[in-house]
Amino acid sequence: MRYELYYWPTIQGRGEFIRLALEEAGADYIDVARRPGNRGVPAMMKLMNDRRLAHPPYAPPFLRAGKFIVAQTANILFFLGPRLGLAPRDEAGRSWAHQLQLTISDLIVEIHDTHHPVSGWLYFEEQRPAARRRTQDFWRYRVPKYLGYFERVLQNNGGKFCVGRRLSYVDLSLFQIVEGLRYAFPQRMKRFERKIPELVALHDRVAKRPRIKSYLASPRRIPFSQWGIYRYFKELDA
Amino acid sequence: MRYELYYWPTIQGRGEFIRLALEEAGADYIDVARRPGNRGVPAMMKLMNDRRLAHPPYAPPFLRAGKFIVAQTANILFFLGPRLGLAPRDEAGRSWAHQLQLTISDLIVEIHDTHHPVSGWLYFEEQRPAARRRTQDFWRYRVPKYLGYFERVLQNNGGKFCVGRRLSYVDLSLFQIVEGLRYAFPQRMKRFERKIPELVALHDRVAKRPRIKSYLASPRRIPFSQWGIYRYFKELDA
Repeated sequence: MRYELYYWPTIQGRGEFIRLALEEAGADYIDVARRPGNRGVPAMMKLMNDRRLAHPPYAPPFLRAGKFIVAQTANILFFLGPRLGLAPRDEAGRSWAHQLQLTISDLIVEIHDTHHPVSGWLYFEEQRPAARRRTQDFWRYRVPKYLGYFERVLQNNGGKFCVGRRLSYVDLSLFQIVEGLRYAFPQRMKRFERKIPELVALHDRVAKRPRIKSYLASPRRIPFSQWGIYRYFKELDA
Repeated sequence: MRYELYYWPTIQGRGEFIRLALEEAGADYIDVARRPGNRGVPAMMKLMNDRRLAHPPYAPPFLRAGKFIVAQTANILFFLGPRLGLAPRDEAGRSWAHQLQLTISDLIVEIHDTHHPVSGWLYFEEQRPAARRRTQDFWRYRVPKYLGYFERVLQNNGGKFCVGRRLSYVDLSLFQIVEGLRYAFPQRMKRFERKIPELVALHDRVAKRPRIKSYLASPRRIPFSQWGIYRYFKELDA
């Protein structure tokens, strides 16, 4: 099965959680909007807005697998998980992995909102005091609660993987969370990491997996930038 | 099967999307934290923080079905859907209903953030200018995009239901979205509704379903208030 991933070609964003799963599995996939020739984004928009589509996606990322089009990051991973060997196959295990992924989705919104709390239609510079306050509460209350939760989940499960006895897309996504927080908040994250030793160790193990390591070193991995979920502003990293 | 729903006892919040599904199906369920005697919330917190729990929920709502504990609103509905006859049973249909529900989840966050954009740890009065700006963009860009999308989904599917040929939890959730936006933004919503005739008609049909009608008139339906997702502030409804 050749998968077609549709996502913005210049950012990691939400698409990255899918890319990591496809890469780790060595799946046959095309990152449609990143094909040469700049025709990828128009193709993506055309498909998304196709009035004949019975099940139109609300927004990227979405995935085409044969005739099937599936959207919403966590839902795509739910679909791919058992197919790529990155999630349990039984209902309880699949549901548990998905539940964790949905909690990661919630965290992602909160990470994004640290730099754009008031509006996505304003520049950061136009919402600076709000961003400072949001970031302060994010690090005081939200990061400890979210990452503390995942630390506990890892500990409960023996420390090696979040779900069951094999690597899952949840582990890959947590790698990306740690990686992104290090990019956006290097100082804060440095101080915080001593509280989440299991998560940091998981991050390091994922980074060393042969396919992930090779992906991260390849041009397929889009660098972090000031346009994605994670953005670095010195004043938010105080 | 007797279901146990765990959610905050004084607000509709995210739990309401589950309550509506259980009520429409006439399911046997206990709203644990609402049992008399004020022991419900401690029981909920105790269960959630139980260190022996293999699959602890991150936050309410969560549902117990026998030994199985499932959390995250959309994931609970995914679990309940086929069991309550409120979602298709085949993979494609189930995934499509879930995808729509996840888009509703995203909308819910944005609705909440209109009155609390900067921080949940500040009063509304402490973030008034940010709330005004956020609300302005919410109604200018986000509501038309989200509700326009669901209007299109309904039209595509013949107008009666969002998914397949039967009522699903997605229809019930969209009822709750319309109901809540009417509570929080009566003036704005009144003006906007002419753009979403199918959604309004769906809302009205859901409201008239015998079990939903009887639920809404019962003390089990917690009234809207200034503590939930939807809050009314006159200045945001200009």
